[in-house]
This record gives sequence, C-alpha cells and structure tokens, in this order.
Amino acid sequence: MRKQILQLGLALAMGVGCISQAFSQVKPEILVEQRPAGMVMMAKYMYSIVPMAMGRVPYDAATVTRNVGYLEVLSKMPWDGFTPATADVKNTKALPAIYADPAKFKAAQDNFQAELAKLIAATKGGNEAAIKTAIVDANTKGCNGCHNDFRAKQQ
Amino acid sequence: MRKQILQLGLALAMGVGCISQAFSQVKPEILVEQRPAGMVMMAKYMYSIVPMAMGRVPYDAATVTRNVGYLEVLSKMPWDGFTPATADVKNTKALPAIYADPAKFKAAQDNFQAELAKLIAATKGGNEAAIKTAIVDANTKGCNGCHNDFRAKQQ
Repeated sequence: MRKQILQLGLALAMGVGCISQAFSQVKPEILVEQRPAGMVMMAKYMYSIVPMAMGRVPYDAATVTRNVGYLEVLSKMPWDGFTPATADVKNTKALPAIYADPAKFKAAQDNFQAELAKLIAATKGGNEAAIKTAIVDANTKGCNGCHNDFRAKQQ
Repeated sequence: MRKQILQLGLALAMGVGCISQAFSQVKPEILVEQRPAGMVMMAKYMYSIVPMAMGRVPYDAATVTRNVGYLEVLSKMPWDGFTPATADVKNTKALPAIYADPAKFKAAQDNFQAELAKLIAATKGGNEAAIKTAIVDANTKGCNGCHNDFRAKQQ
C-alpha cells in the first residue's frame, strides 16, 4: 500500500499521467480507450478509399497508395488491447464473444490481415480494377467479417 | 435537395455510415473524432517507451524499435484534421490558438517531426544511451512543445 502511494505520488509529481503505466501492466481501461482509437484510424483511411473503389468519387491512385500503406501499419496495432482483463470494462462495443471464443476472434483477425495483404499486393501491382476489387473485399470481407461477430451494432 | 435525399437514402440503404463522407468533404465533427484517435495511438507507443528511457522499467530494444517505427507513420496522420472548419466544433481539447496562429501551430508540428526524426535516426544508430535521450526529447520537446500552447490542460 505504501509502495502504491509512493508510486502514485511520483506519477502525479511528474505531471505525466501515462507514466504511471510504467509501474505495472497497462490498465484495462486504458486498453479499452486505445482499441477504438486504432479502429477510428483504420476507418479514416479505409472509408476514404472505399467510395473511390465503388466509383462514387474520383479514383486517386496516390491517395490509395498512401492509405493502404497506413492501413498496413495500423492493422497491427489494436489486437494487443483485447486481453481477458478487459472483458468486464464497460463503454465498449467489443462483444463478450471475443473472450468466449478467442480462437474464432483470432481467425477473424487473420482473415482481415489476409484480405489486407491482398489489397497491399494489388496496390503494388498497380492495376486499378484489381485494386478497387481488393479495397471492397478488404472492407466487406475483412473489416466487416470481424465486426459482424465481435462488435456491437451501431446505434 | 432531391439529390441530397437520394444520396442520404443510398448511404442509409448501404448501412455504411462512413460512405456518406464520399459525397462531400469529411464533416468537421468526424475530423474532430479522428484527431484524438491519432493522438491516443501516438501516446500508446510513446508512453510505453518513455519509462524505459527514464530507467523506470527495463529497456527493451525490440519494443523501442517497433514503437518508433509505428510513431514514424502515426506522426503523419493527425494534422489534416485541424482545418478551420473544425474551429467551432465542441468536445475537443484543441485550443483556438491553432486557428488564430496557424503558422505557429505548423512550426510546433515541424518541431515535433524534427525531434521524432532525431529519435528515428538514433534508433537506427543503435546506441542505447543516445536512443534514451532522443526518446525523452521527443516527448518533452516534441509532444509537449505542441501540447503546451495548443491543447487544453488535462482536467
């Protein structure tokens, strides 16, 4: 207890709240805050190219290449936040199925990564029609393949 | 008006809210949601290595290299969200100074990028002491150099 107070005091004295993470594992509430941040960033770069793939806005190859490059990196970030310790944290769209069937959740992640890998490969290939197909697939099969079973429906 | 209703109906029929972004510029409220998401992700990877640089948790070179690589990409993402159109959106820590003095805000971004570039270079150099110094500088001079003037203080 005394040690905890000392640690808390030091963290407060430093005026850097996140430093307190250093004293222990990252708190479940912080993980639950970080997870949707990663998803929002993936959405930012996915949903600005999906309309291009669907012909609803002009196709811009430079934007697609940039966004897919960002998505390649962003896609690695959210998963370490879905720990069992977060199962009881409120204020999340993550469904209990994530913790009840972790193998199925992992398979959905892997499926997303596989669809994204196809998109990355298509982007490097440079064929616009193939890229457009891969963008739509990455969204409908990749993103939604996970959201359908593991994320609460949008209100 | 009729066109707007058709567009809205199509967006709703598709069940994909973000598709509606395709019909126009991204709404200021969406930009304001995306900005802190990018900041949270930078914090995730910065604040897990700052304690290593300060000797508060064991130094792990692989984690530092990975995180700095992530930060290099993440650092490019938040800035396009600080448009003048977002100046009147509530529920943000972004201060009016961002829009009142955009040149100073841009200089603060550039300073952050410069500090991060030093950290990236140090990481590639592989000297642990130099990396630790660069991590602390990237946080105190880089991150905080922008936060001090342009972000509301934590409550």
